[in-house]
Order: sequence, then C-alpha cells, then structure tokens
Amino acid sequence: MSTSTINVGIIGASGYTGADAVRLLATHPHAEIKLLTGNAHAGKALADIYPQFAGLDVPPLVKAEDADWSAIDVAICGLPHSTAQDVIAQLPESVKVIDMSADFRLRKADTYAEWYGRTHDNPALLGQAVYGLTEHYADEIKNARLVACPGCYPTAALTALLPLVKAGLVSSDDLIIDAKSGVTGAGRSLKEQNLFSEVAEGMNAYGVASHRHAPEIEQEVAKAAGLDDARVNFTPHLVPMNRGEYVSIYARANGADAADMIAAWQAFYADKPFVRVVDNAPATRHVRGSNYCLLSAFDDRIDGRVILFATLDNLVKGSSGQAIQNMNLMFGFDETAGLQQQPLYP
Amino acid sequence: MSTSTINVGIIGASGYTGADAVRLLATHPHAEIKLLTGNAHAGKALADIYPQFAGLDVPPLVKAEDADWSAIDVAICGLPHSTAQDVIAQLPESVKVIDMSADFRLRKADTYAEWYGRTHDNPALLGQAVYGLTEHYADEIKNARLVACPGCYPTAALTALLPLVKAGLVSSDDLIIDAKSGVTGAGRSLKEQNLFSEVAEGMNAYGVASHRHAPEIEQEVAKAAGLDDARVNFTPHLVPMNRGEYVSIYARANGADAADMIAAWQAFYADKPFVRVVDNAPATRHVRGSNYCLLSAFDDRIDGRVILFATLDNLVKGSSGQAIQNMNLMFGFDETAGLQQQPLYP
Amino acid sequence: MSTSTINVGIIGASGYTGADAVRLLATHPHAEIKLLTGNAHAGKALADIYPQFAGLDVPPLVKAEDADWSAIDVAICGLPHSTAQDVIAQLPESVKVIDMSADFRLRKADTYAEWYGRTHDNPALLGQAVYGLTEHYADEIKNARLVACPGCYPTAALTALLPLVKAGLVSSDDLIIDAKSGVTGAGRSLKEQNLFSEVAEGMNAYGVASHRHAPEIEQEVAKAAGLDDARVNFTPHLVPMNRGEYVSIYARANGADAADMIAAWQAFYADKPFVRVVDNAPATRHVRGSNYCLLSAFDDRIDGRVILFATLDNLVKGSSGQAIQNMNLMFGFDETAGLQQQPLYP
Amino acid sequence: MSTSTINVGIIGASGYTGADAVRLLATHPHAEIKLLTGNAHAGKALADIYPQFAGLDVPPLVKAEDADWSAIDVAICGLPHSTAQDVIAQLPESVKVIDMSADFRLRKADTYAEWYGRTHDNPALLGQAVYGLTEHYADEIKNARLVACPGCYPTAALTALLPLVKAGLVSSDDLIIDAKSGVTGAGRSLKEQNLFSEVAEGMNAYGVASHRHAPEIEQEVAKAAGLDDARVNFTPHLVPMNRGEYVSIYARANGADAADMIAAWQAFYADKPFVRVVDNAPATRHVRGSNYCLLSAFDDRIDGRVILFATLDNLVKGSSGQAIQNMNLMFGFDETAGLQQQPLYP
Repeated sequence: MSTSTINVGIIGASGYTGADAVRLLATHPHAEIKLLTGNAHAGKALADIYPQFAGLDVPPLVKAEDADWSAIDVAICGLPHSTAQDVIAQLPESVKVIDMSADFRLRKADTYAEWYGRTHDNPALLGQAVYGLTEHYADEIKNARLVACPGCYPTAALTALLPLVKAGLVSSDDLIIDAKSGVTGAGRSLKEQNLFSEVAEGMNAYGVASHRHAPEIEQEVAKAAGLDDARVNFTPHLVPMNRGEYVSIYARANGADAADMIAAWQAFYADKPFVRVVDNAPATRHVRGSNYCLLSAFDDRIDGRVILFATLDNLVKGSSGQAIQNMNLMFGFDETAGLQQQPLYP
Repeated sequence: MSTSTINVGIIGASGYTGADAVRLLATHPHAEIKLLTGNAHAGKALADIYPQFAGLDVPPLVKAEDADWSAIDVAICGLPHSTAQDVIAQLPESVKVIDMSADFRLRKADTYAEWYGRTHDNPALLGQAVYGLTEHYADEIKNARLVACPGCYPTAALTALLPLVKAGLVSSDDLIIDAKSGVTGAGRSLKEQNLFSEVAEGMNAYGVASHRHAPEIEQEVAKAAGLDDARVNFTPHLVPMNRGEYVSIYARANGADAADMIAAWQAFYADKPFVRVVDNAPATRHVRGSNYCLLSAFDDRIDGRVILFATLDNLVKGSSGQAIQNMNLMFGFDETAGLQQQPLYP
Repeated sequence: MSTSTINVGIIGASGYTGADAVRLLATHPHAEIKLLTGNAHAGKALADIYPQFAGLDVPPLVKAEDADWSAIDVAICGLPHSTAQDVIAQLPESVKVIDMSADFRLRKADTYAEWYGRTHDNPALLGQAVYGLTEHYADEIKNARLVACPGCYPTAALTALLPLVKAGLVSSDDLIIDAKSGVTGAGRSLKEQNLFSEVAEGMNAYGVASHRHAPEIEQEVAKAAGLDDARVNFTPHLVPMNRGEYVSIYARANGADAADMIAAWQAFYADKPFVRVVDNAPATRHVRGSNYCLLSAFDDRIDGRVILFATLDNLVKGSSGQAIQNMNLMFGFDETAGLQQQPLYP
Repeated sequence: MSTSTINVGIIGASGYTGADAVRLLATHPHAEIKLLTGNAHAGKALADIYPQFAGLDVPPLVKAEDADWSAIDVAICGLPHSTAQDVIAQLPESVKVIDMSADFRLRKADTYAEWYGRTHDNPALLGQAVYGLTEHYADEIKNARLVACPGCYPTAALTALLPLVKAGLVSSDDLIIDAKSGVTGAGRSLKEQNLFSEVAEGMNAYGVASHRHAPEIEQEVAKAAGLDDARVNFTPHLVPMNRGEYVSIYARANGADAADMIAAWQAFYADKPFVRVVDNAPATRHVRGSNYCLLSAFDDRIDGRVILFATLDNLVKGSSGQAIQNMNLMFGFDETAGLQQQPLYP
C-alpha cells in the first residue's frame, strides 16, 4: 500500500458532488486539495458558497482555464455532462482524471449521441475511459488514466445485478428496476421541480422510459450477459429526502431463488469492503453519508421471480465516494482510505 | 338525489382515519356527526386528542359499548382489524356500516385466517359485506348494509388494474406492483419505526412478499380476470411524507400499448368524478387532502410491456374519503357531497 | 347576509397565494372565478401550471393587460410588490380590489420608499387603502374599495399583540417577535435558498433586523399604542415545512400576567370565528390549510414578562384566506363563507 | 500530546447519543470501543438495533450490572437522567466517567430535586462533577474523574452567552432565549409527539417556562455574572428535522453593540477549534454531523439591544461530540481527535 500524499484538483467544486468530494478528502490521509475550479464563482473562497467549509484550508476557486495543473496528480470532475468532456480534454496528460459526469460512461459514441442529443467531442478519449464501478472494474481502474464514474442509479442497480446476470441466475430480458432518489440527485440547479415546496410532502415518478441512466445500465447488463444489447425497465422516482437512493429490482430467476442470489453476492463481494448483504430490506438511512452499498434479496409471491434491493448514498457511493475509492486504487492506497466515516443516523 | 340529513357515528374516532372522516364530514351538506367512540379516550372531547377540531361542534368520545345507536343512520368504523369485526357485529341492524378496517375485505374466511392469523369471528357477516371500491361496485354498495372499504394500496392498484384486466389488456400473471406510502398509512400507533427520526430523510421497503394488502389485490384481480386465484408482486415502501400513496405497476400487455390502457380507463371512468387520467407521471401532492385518484400509462422500453401509475391520498380516497363516497351512494346523495375539497398544494 | 353570487378575477394566479385563492374559492358558495391573469403563462390552462386543478372549471390565464374586467366584481391580486401597484392602478373603478402584495400596507409613502427601495407610484391610492387585518378593521373593510391584506407574519404578530397593546397590558417598546415560517412564504420563485436540498433537514434565521414585515408591524403597534412610531424586534426563521407560521413573542407586562392577556383576547375575539385562544402552546399543524389563528399566553420565568404565541397557515389566514374573509365582508356574505375547511392533519 | 490507545465503554448504547458516540469513536485514532451496555437489548449485537453499524467490530451489548470494567479506561454514559446516577455510582474508581445525562449538571442537589422531582441519590458525587462545557472548563475537565456534559440547549446558549456575560457586555437579567431543536433531541423513546406524522410539516413550542435546561443555563449565567441566581427566558420549539439546534438570543447590551460581542467572542474562542464566529445568520445544516458551534451577532432594531445566534448539532457538540472532546482533554489527546468530520451538507 502506498502511503505517499497526492495533490488533488476538483473541477466544478461548486456542485453537490464537488462539495462532497471536498468533505471526504478533508480527512483523507493521503490526499490534499490543491486546486478548486468553479467558473461561475471564480475568485471566491469555497466557504462563500459552502459555509460549512469555513474552517477548512483549501485554495480559492479559479476558472478552469486559469488553473495550474503542473503540481496536480489527479482531477476529480464534478461538472455537468457536455461541459465535462471539453474541460477534461484540455488537461495535461500527467493528470489522472476521475470524471463524475456522464460524458465518458457510454462506450459507444452513437449511444451517447442518441441519449445526450449531441455528438461526443472526443470519441478517442471515450475509447480510453474505464467504467468506474469499482468492485467490477478494479483491475482496469488501477491502470487507467481516465475513469468514468457510473451514475448513482447505475451504481446501485449494477451492484445488485452484475454478479447475478454473469452467473445466469436472473434473466436479462425482463428486468424491472424501480428506483427512488433523494433530491440531491438533481444537483444544485435552479429548477422549479427542485424547490422545497414542490418536493416536500410528496413524491412522483419522472423520466419514465426515458431517463439517461437506462442506456448505462443496459450497456453493463448486456456485457455481463454476453449480449450485444439489452433492454431494461428503469423507472426513477423523486422522494422528499436530501440523500439516498433505493433500487427495487423485480427479476425472473432462472430456476434459482433468493438464497442463490444471496450466495452469489456473498461470494462475489466477500472481500469488497463497501458492499454488504443484509437480511432485511435495507434502508437509505443506514448508508447516509457513507460509501456503503447494501443488498438484499427475497423470493417473490409469483413463482420463479425474485425481488432485489440495493441502497446507497447517491452523493457518496453513487458519486464522490466511489470517485475517491477509484482514486485510492489508481494511486495504490488502501481502498478504504478517507472513506471510513460511519453512516450518519439519524 | 336525496337532500335529507343523516346522523353519523364514527367508531374509533381517535385514529387518523377516524379523524379524517371527521374533517370531511364537518362540511358535508347532508351528514351530522352525532356519535364518536374511542375506548382509550372515553369521556374526552375530540379536541383533547385532536386540537385542530376545537371549533367543531361534535359529541364527546364514549366507549363503544356505551354508545346509543338508536338515532344513528350509519356507522363509519376506523378501528384496527380484529377489533372491528366484534364491534360491528354488535351494532343494531338498523345501522348501516362502512368499515375501514381489513376485517370484511377478504371474501373467503380461509384467506382471512391465513393472512390475519386468526379465525374470523363472523363469517356470516363477511358473506354479506360488499367490497367498497366505489367505482367498481357502485350498484352493490347502494344496496348494502355493510361495506368493507378497500385498503389504501388496493384502492390505488385496483383502480389502475381492474378495467385493464377485465378488458384483457394486461396479463394477470405477471403484475409487479411497486408501492410507496406516506407514514399516516401506519396509523397513530407507537412503534419505533414510525418515529420521526426513524423515517425522515430516508426510505425503505417493508413487508416484502408478505404485506396483507397482497391477498386483497389478488382477490380482485382474479375476479376481474375470471380466475379462481391470482398471484401478484406487491412491494410496499415507506416514504418520508405524511400523506400520499403512489403505485407503479409494471405489466405485460397482451398486444396492447399504453394508448390502449388510457383509452380503456377513459371509457371506464368517463362519468366517475374522482378518477382522472393524466398525461404525465402523476404526483401525490396533486391529490393531497382530496378524494381524487390519478392514473397514467406509458410504454415500457421493454417491448410488449407497459408502466402504469396510480396516486391518491391514503387517508382520503384510500380510506375516509372513499368511505364517505360510499355513504353518499348508500343514502342516495350526490356522490361528491362533502368531497369537493381541492387538493392542498403545496 | 347576501346570498348573491359575485364574479372574481385573480391577478397573478400562478403564484402560491393565487393558487390557494383558487383552492378556497372553488368551494365558495357565492363566488365564481371568471378571470385569471398570469403574464408569464398567458394562454395556458391553470392546470398546466397547477395540475391539481385539472378537474376545475376555470378560464385560461390571460395577460393582465388583455383582461376584460367588465363583468368582474372583485380582483384578488397575488402579484409581487412593486408590480401590484401598477396593475391595480389600471383597474376600472367598478372593480373592488383585495391586494395580497405589500404595496398598499404601509400608510406612509416615505416608509414604503425606505423599505422597498423605490418611490410608490400611486400615493393617492395608497391613501385610500384599508389595512385588511379583518378582526381589527372590519368596519373599514366593509366599505373599502381597496383592501391591503397584511403580510403573513404581521397577521400572526398583530392578532396576538393589538388587543394587548390597546389595553395597555404589554409595553410597546420592548417587543421581541421571534417568528418561524414554512417555505411557501418565499413563494414559487427560483432562488437557491428555496431548493429542497438547501432547506430540508435544517433551519436558519434570515432578514435579521431588516425584514420588510417589521415596519408593517411597527405601524400597527404604534397606532394601537397611540404613538407616532414604534420599534420592535422582528426576527424571522425558515423552517423545513411547506405551510405554517409560528410567532413567539416575548413582552414586558405592565403589571399584568398571562391570565390577563388571555382574558383580553377572549373578550376581543369572542365573536370572531377564526381566532381561537388555546391552553397549550399551539402547533402549526392544527391550522394547516385552514383560516384559523391560534393564540396562547404564558407567564415567563422572568418576573413581569409574558410569552405569547400565535400560529396560522401563511397561505390561508396569512394570505388568501384572509383575502377571502375580507371579500366576504366587502360583499355582505357570511364571514366564514368558503372558509370552513377543517385543518388538514396530519 | 498522548498517542496511546484507551479502552472505552459506552453505557446505554441503544439511545441516539450512545449511537452517535459509537459513530464518532469508530474513527477515533486513540480509542477503542471495548464495552457496550444496553439493558433492554442485552445479548444483541449493536447492529441488531442500529443496522448501520453492521460492518463495525464492536462487542455485543451486555447488561450494565454484568459489565466487566477492569480493562476500561473511560465510560461514556448515554442513559436517561435518574437512571444514570445509580449506574455511575457503581463504577470502579479506576474508570473515568463522562455523563451525557442531566444527573450531574446542576451543582445544587436542591435545584436537582426541584426540577427532576426526586432527591439526588449521590450528592457527594454531584459535588465532584465538573460541568463539561469544554471551552469554558477545560482545566477542570483535564483533571476530572466525572464530567457532566451540558444539555444540548445549554451548550448552544452558554457558548454564546458566557463570554459576553463575563465581560459585562449583556445584562443577565433580561435574556430571552428562543430555542429550536430537531427531533433527535427527544431521543428514541416511544411518545406520540415524536411520531413522524405528529412532527413533519409542522412546528410548535413546548416546555414553555418549564424546560429542565432552564436551571442549567441559569446556573452558569449566574456564575458568569458573579450572582447567586439568575432567571432567563428559555423557550424551546420542536422543528421537523432530525438533527440541529438553533438558539436565538435577545439581550440588552450594556452600552455595547454587536461588533463588541463579535470581538469578545473572537478573543475568547481564538484558539478553540470548534467554535466559529460567522458573519451571516448561521444555519444548522452547516454543522450537521460535526462538532462545530457557530455564532453570530446583530444589532437589534430596538436601540440598545442585540440579537445573538448559536447553532450546533444536538447529537454532536450538543452531546456525544462534546463528550469525546472532553475525553480527549481527560486523556491528553489532541482536542480534535476523532472529531474532524466535516459537516454533512446537504
């Protein structure tokens, strides 16, 4: 294990994922925040936009184009998709990159164009990117220069599904993924539907049959199943809480049952510190603020079907925490470095 | 339409469903609350346990066994299951009964015994009960003495499903019902899992493959499909909000698509004032405090499958509101009498 | 009592106060909504911006300048301050006006200019406006053409204070008003501080010693005390709830105690249907969605001081409900017409 | 600074304060949890009652009377008042004790008896206890065997007030303390008023002029003012959030103003790592999950008065965090050891 110290730059530090990366890195034993970019807030102290960091010794925000990357080992990018790809393309080759946007998650530029409504600017870089689902791509991540961290929903869904699809325990052509998210999943942008009074004391589905995390899940499910393509149901819902993501998956089991699913998970995740199989239905509050992902499985009342649950904190294992977990692998640190906070409950 | 005035007694007025019946009846043009029972609070004013009713002219709570039913036309029962059946059995035949508990919903005493862990005390009365899903059993309800109001989840799920199953538009053997509820669904009972600090800022599934609303849904789905039995997936989740219920149903369409579902609903519910088909995914906040149920349908990404949504306020259309809607039918009032409150939004 | 029917126009129907006026008027026995303006949404149905009203028969939104006022008896104005005064100035004299903005609340144009950072466009109209605190200005309201409804905080604070200041029971020079509000008080505008993730699970003071409701409270306290001017502490706090306002007032009693305060309130509000004196500390949830204002008083631990509480729903008694209460007086209807909804609890 | 490792026992680990002590100690560099007591849950794993700790290596819960204290250096007690004093009295003298209950906070046994309705069982031990407001009693705490951690409200109020009262900047006879708390302040006990549906979407005052934290605040204010006794207004309110405490203090300044208050705080807390003076009104969300206490001061609109704010996380600086901060002093560790988590925001 390395115990050296690296210098980290955070691109787009003014969003919630950027801020949670700061929170986690603040107590990381081997990483120091040496650069923060935020174009709309350049010149400000981070504490001007996130007062909770008033006591933290970090540099002020600069514009991405003004940043000095010469002493930086790794960039963690919290920009929105479309913006991220261009900024990342400008980074010196000496800087490793961990992107939390959607820009490098889809392996096929065509699929990207179809779902994001624009041609990818940098298909070559896209070809080099490793999909940063840590527990499933650890070897590739260790050697990658550019890691594309999965979306929060795909992290939860794929952590549950991949070992089962690979083992042939569930059918890949009949996966129903009913997902629920807290509101930070929508970021800090000013949209009417994110106002407190439009969210509190209520819930609703959104992005029905059209959410951009669907092709990402399908890409990985198809790969695990050894197919060219897959189609899944993915139906997200907005729930009145800040953090937390909950995925309920309804699957046809190929002659297997919930006990088989649990056994497959326990085998696959035996030495993975952040994935835990639990007996009861998990709860988002049991992972709040932490990098854990909890799984559980039940037999359905309908014969031959199973119910799978996965939960995580969308800003941690679903975003900044997994980014740091990947960073740990990329630099030879202990996988759990800086990620040992226990869940905040209540 | 009748415009006479009836006298109503509420049994178990200290629970949330009892309280919401009081709220709605307070402005009902043809009903007066003349009796309130609540054994644990007998002798108290209703405002002692629900201070919001301090301005309302209603009688004090009495014990069920001390109640004088001679001038009462109808009893609305908000007791828990098991308790309800015995109290209802004691009522004089002259009193019509609208039960909001689970005691008279299942037509088969065997099914009741299996799911509620006890023999039904009154199978004869069970045989007379009409299932109070107003839009589907209006004729029976008009002539019934005992109406068993459906559970909140079944009301939402069946309002979406029954017209489609009857028309053969969806298969009844592959219904996935992912349901989400606010916390009032659990009543006012003192359980750790209902504490604010155990619910706020989080969510979880519960009662997986074992919730008592499953057999109720199955009973009605089977009937609509012309089958003896049906099995459905029914997976409830607890969401941090007071009121509101949201049901996301994933179904295999028999050669039909979402447009066919919508057409079938529009035809079936054309003259039903409380069921409305909407274009977008509905939201619980659009029905809060009101007796509406909103439906919408989408084609799934998986070929041949559809996604159906239903939402309602669990204490109104899911309980007390539907009870009063049934009362209106039973006494010849306009179906909407006392139920014209618009949703409280935000 | 009049039982005729009037035609109502709502100016600025797309805000929360406009929407709550629609909700309440929908079941008003003597009022019909015949005109809705909303410049940013002109041409849309109200249900396009407030889907909860999909079942309601109201006209589409038009621009204020395109509105036909010829058949309208009264305008209820939900526009923001500054905008309201100009639109109201254009209305034909035949239309009575109930303004929910701040534009006509301050009697002195100088005070308006000082606090709102602009000269009032219409000091003559300002001079005609009646302050719409219903219980205190009922006679003036009955004969007014233009009523300026108080802000939500002033309604709560003044309902508690005015009878006591008038009776000399509390000193007017040492009033500490610690106020707490739900988030709808900030309207539906897109500001970062109103995002769910910036509000939920937290609270803070805001507008300390600088909130625009202070001069409004001071104006009325001074008048009640028979003084030219008054200065009060008014410190608002934002609380993570949609609706509800809670005012805790700390006052020096002039030889009186809490029992005297209660007696003064009971005398003053004896025949006022919407103000209620309660024994315990009131709760916002006991007034949610209703037009009630609850008061209670306690002796302080510090000798010679008292603690006063007032609570109301900021969108109802604090805004649209009081507007309709005033409308009832202006047209000779029963004061409670359309306002008899019981609180929605939980 | 010591860098040795100590063994910690937590008494009453099943409450929220006990659980938060576990959360914080889990990453403490010099402390290991070697004993957990919880009489109602003896024999269970901690994860049975707090599933978020499933990955943590801690001993199972035992009954207090069965605990082996021979290898334990310090006990952190999370029991309720009354229970705590007897359990603490039984501990061997070799074990240092940090009590989070109210049992040893009041210096006078008479005051304890008056407010807690019972005679203190152990006035001798009471005499030895040091009041654990770290920033104000650090020297005594370093040498204490028994530290009585302040209540959450007193920690917030006194952190703001003590430097100002000592310096004579504010009068001690006219302090109005309007306090707001999240629901975890009430613990995990099953009371109707703590149910989600009784708390969410609403707020209320409670314990008006009678809350047990008043005498604790008065004791310390009197001491700081050099008086035998003091009387303060202390009015707590329950706010719908899990964590967080917010204290708004209205005080008469003795010829001083807000700038003087700020200067006095800055001088007093200059080298105190957990108290921070901020420019704007602070927010509970800026301290969530952390040990920080934020202060700010404003001039009132009423001449000669000031407004002071203090905020903290009631379970951290208001309870378990301050307990660990005290433990650090008692054992010669860095004061911030194990307490460097940044606030969880959102």
